[in-house]
Amino acid sequence: MATLIKNGIIVSTADEFKGDILIENGKITTIGINLENHTDDIVNASGMYVLPGGIDQHTHFSFTYKNAKVRGFETSNAAAIGGTTTVIDFVNQKPGKGIVESVKEYDKNEVSNVAMVDYSFHGIVFEATNEIFEEIPTLPKEGIPTLKLFMAYKGFPYHCDDEAVFRALKASKDSGVTIMVHAENADVIDVLQKECLKKGLTDPYYHAVSRPPLVEVEATQRAINLARLADAPLYVVHVSAKEAMEAIRDANISGSSIYGETCTHYLILDTDNLAKPNFEGAKYVCSPALRSIEHRESLWKGVKKGWLNAISSDHCGFDWKVQKNMGKDDFTSIPNGAPGLQNRLGILWTFGVETGKISRQKLVDLFSTAPAKINGIDYVKGHIGIGYDADIVIYNPNTKNIISVENSLQGVDYSPYEGMTQIGNVEKVFLRGELIVDAGKYIGKVGDGKFVKGKPFGLCYEDIK
Amino acid sequence: MATLIKNGIIVSTADEFKGDILIENGKITTIGINLENHTDDIVNASGMYVLPGGIDQHTHFSFTYKNAKVRGFETSNAAAIGGTTTVIDFVNQKPGKGIVESVKEYDKNEVSNVAMVDYSFHGIVFEATNEIFEEIPTLPKEGIPTLKLFMAYKGFPYHCDDEAVFRALKASKDSGVTIMVHAENADVIDVLQKECLKKGLTDPYYHAVSRPPLVEVEATQRAINLARLADAPLYVVHVSAKEAMEAIRDANISGSSIYGETCTHYLILDTDNLAKPNFEGAKYVCSPALRSIEHRESLWKGVKKGWLNAISSDHCGFDWKVQKNMGKDDFTSIPNGAPGLQNRLGILWTFGVETGKISRQKLVDLFSTAPAKINGIDYVKGHIGIGYDADIVIYNPNTKNIISVENSLQGVDYSPYEGMTQIGNVEKVFLRGELIVDAGKYIGKVGDGKFVKGKPFGLCYEDIK
Amino acid sequence: MATLIKNGIIVSTADEFKGDILIENGKITTIGINLENHTDDIVNASGMYVLPGGIDQHTHFSFTYKNAKVRGFETSNAAAIGGTTTVIDFVNQKPGKGIVESVKEYDKNEVSNVAMVDYSFHGIVFEATNEIFEEIPTLPKEGIPTLKLFMAYKGFPYHCDDEAVFRALKASKDSGVTIMVHAENADVIDVLQKECLKKGLTDPYYHAVSRPPLVEVEATQRAINLARLADAPLYVVHVSAKEAMEAIRDANISGSSIYGETCTHYLILDTDNLAKPNFEGAKYVCSPALRSIEHRESLWKGVKKGWLNAISSDHCGFDWKVQKNMGKDDFTSIPNGAPGLQNRLGILWTFGVETGKISRQKLVDLFSTAPAKINGIDYVKGHIGIGYDADIVIYNPNTKNIISVENSLQGVDYSPYEGMTQIGNVEKVFLRGELIVDAGKYIGKVGDGKFVKGKPFGLCYEDIK
Amino acid sequence: MATLIKNGIIVSTADEFKGDILIENGKITTIGINLENHTDDIVNASGMYVLPGGIDQHTHFSFTYKNAKVRGFETSNAAAIGGTTTVIDFVNQKPGKGIVESVKEYDKNEVSNVAMVDYSFHGIVFEATNEIFEEIPTLPKEGIPTLKLFMAYKGFPYHCDDEAVFRALKASKDSGVTIMVHAENADVIDVLQKECLKKGLTDPYYHAVSRPPLVEVEATQRAINLARLADAPLYVVHVSAKEAMEAIRDANISGSSIYGETCTHYLILDTDNLAKPNFEGAKYVCSPALRSIEHRESLWKGVKKGWLNAISSDHCGFDWKVQKNMGKDDFTSIPNGAPGLQNRLGILWTFGVETGKISRQKLVDLFSTAPAKINGIDYVKGHIGIGYDADIVIYNPNTKNIISVENSLQGVDYSPYEGMTQIGNVEKVFLRGELIVDAGKYIGKVGDGKFVKGKPFGLCYEDIK
Repeated sequence: MATLIKNGIIVSTADEFKGDILIENGKITTIGINLENHTDDIVNASGMYVLPGGIDQHTHFSFTYKNAKVRGFETSNAAAIGGTTTVIDFVNQKPGKGIVESVKEYDKNEVSNVAMVDYSFHGIVFEATNEIFEEIPTLPKEGIPTLKLFMAYKGFPYHCDDEAVFRALKASKDSGVTIMVHAENADVIDVLQKECLKKGLTDPYYHAVSRPPLVEVEATQRAINLARLADAPLYVVHVSAKEAMEAIRDANISGSSIYGETCTHYLILDTDNLAKPNFEGAKYVCSPALRSIEHRESLWKGVKKGWLNAISSDHCGFDWKVQKNMGKDDFTSIPNGAPGLQNRLGILWTFGVETGKISRQKLVDLFSTAPAKINGIDYVKGHIGIGYDADIVIYNPNTKNIISVENSLQGVDYSPYEGMTQIGNVEKVFLRGELIVDAGKYIGKVGDGKFVKGKPFGLCYEDIK
Repeated sequence: MATLIKNGIIVSTADEFKGDILIENGKITTIGINLENHTDDIVNASGMYVLPGGIDQHTHFSFTYKNAKVRGFETSNAAAIGGTTTVIDFVNQKPGKGIVESVKEYDKNEVSNVAMVDYSFHGIVFEATNEIFEEIPTLPKEGIPTLKLFMAYKGFPYHCDDEAVFRALKASKDSGVTIMVHAENADVIDVLQKECLKKGLTDPYYHAVSRPPLVEVEATQRAINLARLADAPLYVVHVSAKEAMEAIRDANISGSSIYGETCTHYLILDTDNLAKPNFEGAKYVCSPALRSIEHRESLWKGVKKGWLNAISSDHCGFDWKVQKNMGKDDFTSIPNGAPGLQNRLGILWTFGVETGKISRQKLVDLFSTAPAKINGIDYVKGHIGIGYDADIVIYNPNTKNIISVENSLQGVDYSPYEGMTQIGNVEKVFLRGELIVDAGKYIGKVGDGKFVKGKPFGLCYEDIK
Repeated sequence: MATLIKNGIIVSTADEFKGDILIENGKITTIGINLENHTDDIVNASGMYVLPGGIDQHTHFSFTYKNAKVRGFETSNAAAIGGTTTVIDFVNQKPGKGIVESVKEYDKNEVSNVAMVDYSFHGIVFEATNEIFEEIPTLPKEGIPTLKLFMAYKGFPYHCDDEAVFRALKASKDSGVTIMVHAENADVIDVLQKECLKKGLTDPYYHAVSRPPLVEVEATQRAINLARLADAPLYVVHVSAKEAMEAIRDANISGSSIYGETCTHYLILDTDNLAKPNFEGAKYVCSPALRSIEHRESLWKGVKKGWLNAISSDHCGFDWKVQKNMGKDDFTSIPNGAPGLQNRLGILWTFGVETGKISRQKLVDLFSTAPAKINGIDYVKGHIGIGYDADIVIYNPNTKNIISVENSLQGVDYSPYEGMTQIGNVEKVFLRGELIVDAGKYIGKVGDGKFVKGKPFGLCYEDIK
Repeated sequence: MATLIKNGIIVSTADEFKGDILIENGKITTIGINLENHTDDIVNASGMYVLPGGIDQHTHFSFTYKNAKVRGFETSNAAAIGGTTTVIDFVNQKPGKGIVESVKEYDKNEVSNVAMVDYSFHGIVFEATNEIFEEIPTLPKEGIPTLKLFMAYKGFPYHCDDEAVFRALKASKDSGVTIMVHAENADVIDVLQKECLKKGLTDPYYHAVSRPPLVEVEATQRAINLARLADAPLYVVHVSAKEAMEAIRDANISGSSIYGETCTHYLILDTDNLAKPNFEGAKYVCSPALRSIEHRESLWKGVKKGWLNAISSDHCGFDWKVQKNMGKDDFTSIPNGAPGLQNRLGILWTFGVETGKISRQKLVDLFSTAPAKINGIDYVKGHIGIGYDADIVIYNPNTKNIISVENSLQGVDYSPYEGMTQIGNVEKVFLRGELIVDAGKYIGKVGDGKFVKGKPFGLCYEDIK
């Protein structure tokens, strides 16, 4: 069982060259120039870029807000046609259950039978009990080396106070687990939200007003201090504010194992989107909130310089007409989150590579290679290299396409990127050697996605020893 | 009614010269050389330093921990013989009552009839109710322009979460009130305390172990961020950690109205004191905890450079044998705080001026002039200048004295400075022109201390307009 | 011989109150309320501010550029009517002569017989010989504790290279001398000037183009590094660039004895002035060049915060029509410098105090008290305090006046502040008790100005011990 | 003509795996697992690391100090046995000749006929004439995209003042040339050297005393400021002081294209070496001088974090007994520089990889991949990737060896690393597919090294567009 991809421009974080890739039994076994045609399954990639399949390290296929549930893994073919071959999904701890148990149930009931790309998991703490803290050191052996806590969302079960964050960090020390945080000051948001509502300011735009950048900066600095106190590594998800990014950068410079990601939407959208009339703004309600253009441009600088080391989608499939509409008269009741899993590569290519903001090598790193390392799955994923899983994207740089919900497999009734012109398109995608996207269409098999065990400490590993 | 102080070396923040001071009706009316002897009441200050009476902006004459109550204003003659003529006392809000009502009751019942020095008040929030936040803007007209919140002390009624701190800051904006915070992360301390106890580490020394410097640094940075979010000034009390001081300095440099003080004990004691055997360490249990010598030396630099603008005593009169003993088997039950009101001047003179760490001008500023400004009482206090209250200390620099509980009027059974050699001594003290200390003995009248109204915004005023 | 100034609002760096000042034998001997009228010479200062006479620590009464010589001490009555009672004049070392010899000759020939205000001197190195470096430690005993070196002006005799600056700093160490530098990178300016001229860009505006802020920032950082290498204090004159100021501030924070001043014109003029047509721009040619408004506003913040500790005029009396005209066709031949001695107080009052940028206390400090300390003449000058020289300005805050060359005594044919409206005016000035300005007119006697010996190390003293 | 290297552990900056490399016509054409044996030339690399051949971007094969000339390219086999397959040699501009002419003459006369590894060139300015500045933009088309200026060495022909550095930077802007500087303050060194000699302090140790870290820090900051003024990229060679590294890092963070390298010896030697008796210290006289251990450890952190992006040898082959001996009685006459070309890989492996200070991936980057990019030769060199020159090192990690001059091919009578134990050894080296080292012995052919053209702007390219 072999496939030969020929004459593409192969891009890794380290090089770029015209060549061929031989896939055998789902693995990349040979890379070279003018490889012999040992197989009949030959793919002509001439004029195309050949990239490692994307790793989206931040998706929510299972979040529920009040009675609104996001679209699940049955829409994971959207990842595939967007060039993402592995998602690391956030799994909410279930009431009265441990992290591992929650993950396993979820995997069995909602993932393994429908996944159309490979997947790994992060846990999310919902009940900060002694049992959970005791469970933390055991997570790596289950292949779940990451655990997130929400510092935001006062009043919700998943909100974690400093005690929880600090205890989680302490428990993670030396265990191989990297604690992740959603860093926003829950109390301040709560006060500002109530203040807005009291003044009758209920439009989606006030989502941003009640979550100013300093709310994120404060919590980020706090999380960093807690990590230092615990002497444990920390990963800050969806960084959106310039000074939060700088706090992470400076902590790293000073020698702490502190890292962070940003997300696609923070790089090309801004607060103006939230101000769209007719409740359109609700489509852009995610947390942290979209920022001003100054923040946005600083994030581009930050990903180029490596101050943030990955770009995820923070994909969250809530519908607009029904689900987002819960907050029609009260922005605080709009379910947070936006879909974007399908568009990550196209957007980074269009607004990053084509504008010269980042090189193709950097794109590959932010989109695939670094997320694989961060989550400890770089032993099989994230790189076009010998022995790696043959997760490969063939990207045609020569087309122009309008992004629209009409072309979306995300199962949601809108796209936050509606109407934008994307340069290039995903032509073919291989998952462990299987062609699952052809001519941009998903042709794979439901349930063919496999669980990938994460190894301890991921990218932080080198720093903490 | 006039008094003439002759031939002393008069020290202000601005100058130092040999001269005379004429006091009429409790005020300084004339300063000069060879003033005529219009009065029979002539005090020869030859060879002595003549300083403005001290302002101790941080005393606790009314704190109760469980059933242990500190010594009160009946010991305020200790201030007098220590060269402090005004104390700004922290008043705990009473259950179900407002700040002003609590202060007035306290003043009436426990202060006005026994005060032996002048006094002003800070409020302390115990119940962060809507009523309290609404009361904040009304405080200045009652002469109480400062209000403190405890970020530390999880589980105690006075502990305030971020919501309370943020709401207080917002309420204070433009009102003339300066919010003060005790900045330590309550959650982290709680976790570390329990961890110590669980390990059987119950000695006083673990007070410091469970309150590492980062606990203070984190809360200080958080408070600064909250103040920025609220666009309100902030005053951080009893700063003890180098990086906390630097955070305040840097916030100030960046343009925020952020200030802080340190205390006498942080400048000359250190964690070694907490390690004293036979429960002696308990005498040094105060919060934040005593720090290492590196922190201590950085604080000296900080007060010299003006990064912290006042030195208070954080006086807290708990007995050792009975009250501190509550924590004999559990350091978390030791009442926090140490007495020191009486020793502030002697210590700053001995370890600051005599060592060359600070000039006499700087001492006057940190000990008296700046605290007067900070608390808005500089219209009558804190300076040897025309029209000011004749609160004057005559300091003899030529003696050496051993500090001991035996010479203390603090009403407590120990002194944290026991056995130290003090250079110089307070010879005479005038309070509004009345001689209340002579030959180092208190000779004033119980109840002669008067309330001094604080004016809005104090030292921060210039910055925030 | 006594004078009594009654009922003025007396302002010092430490206080402000309505009161009286008794002057006896040229000294302030008594300050108080309702002083008795022991003298017939009573001055009613009711409704007026009573300030210490100004110290202008940066004047050039003796500079020569090619054959153009500035106006000298015969115009020092301009200082007097501007509220400045002491100037610290820069004295150029004469060919083949030492600093002291040059100063003494200058004093004898050009100063003592015509000075109309008191004066002290800084030396300027013109020939960086071994003899000069050997002379440095001897300067304090002659009352000249400051010595300036020009890092700018490549090709001119007074230009000093790093060897000279470093050797001067090393020689000054522990001697009591504070080295001052004009900090601009001479080489870069030279290259940029030639580049401008080569392109035919000869207008005065190109003075600024050829001296961008980084030219100053670089040299300032270099001087700071040289001072650290020599372990000697440093004073940077006429700081105009934001980042240069910040470099000084940060060096000071880090513990070095590094200080700097700015000048009146950098606080209210900007590069637009240099762009005035008809060679009017030449009136504003001084070095460093005028900066953008952003720099200007940062300097206001810097003087308020104390990052720069004095404001001088850098007075330099070149005529426009003849002398500045030397550079009609070549901006590099315009003599550098602008007159401003007379306007310092009026401008700081108008644009500083009246706008709320600085308090009156801060004005007094920047205008008089700090310069007295910096130059070691604070034992007699710079303060309204007992025993100080009775150098006193009575300022009427209730008038408005148009600044114009027509009212100038500076002896120069233009004013860089022409047409600006000044709030308030200098009503009377006393020099050592003598009334030398009355109703804004100079009424003193030519030659009555006296030399004031500077004491070692000035303001830096405290830091370096 | 093909070679197959089998079963080695292939290390690149991006990955590490056990596999095979097929070399055809001097190029790497295929990489994979279990490649078919199409050739008889099969090399078993089992148990060995397979690394890209090193790029030493800083060698001096042609420096002359007074009448002492270093060993030249006839010793370049030392590079080969040390695992370095390309050197970028510094070529001194010849009197009256241009950079290109000087390089071509040198290449023809001293290099091409004897080179035993591939090579590229940097120019060094000796005469900062207009002609040189005009020549700068023409260098890239000759394949010389880098040009160094010496800010140090006052009094020597190659010393460049700020005018020269600034003009070179301006000339380089947009041309593709990266200016490199040796950053030390020449004037300060000169003063300190004379001071030492005057005091009779003539031992090699005073080399360090007369070149304290601040001398480097100052010049580095100055060069950065000059580069900013010129809006041109800058590369700082042989960074040895912590604060110099930090200045480069911070300039880069702020957005400037500023980079730097360090050298092998700064990572494992320190000032103690200079203090060795019997003139042994002279063996360690290089500039900048060796630093304290604190600096050394900070450099390790810096290369790991990427604040410095390459490690070169700064190889300089002066003999000790004769040439270094010129400074027997005067350390300022000791020829500067030390040999080390042969030991770079072994030392980085031993003290970097084996101690856990850096990963093997990072070693490959610092030793080979980054230097290739910096110098614009990454189109053929510095990476084990398809299409690259087959410059390959087979490193045996399982041996221990004593470094000694006895095993050296450097042609110098000492080794600064004498007696150190090296872990592992270079077993085989391929240069463009030719086996030139076998069993650690050089078996190549004199003159087989080829010139490699450097492409414009190197690593800085991405930043400056």
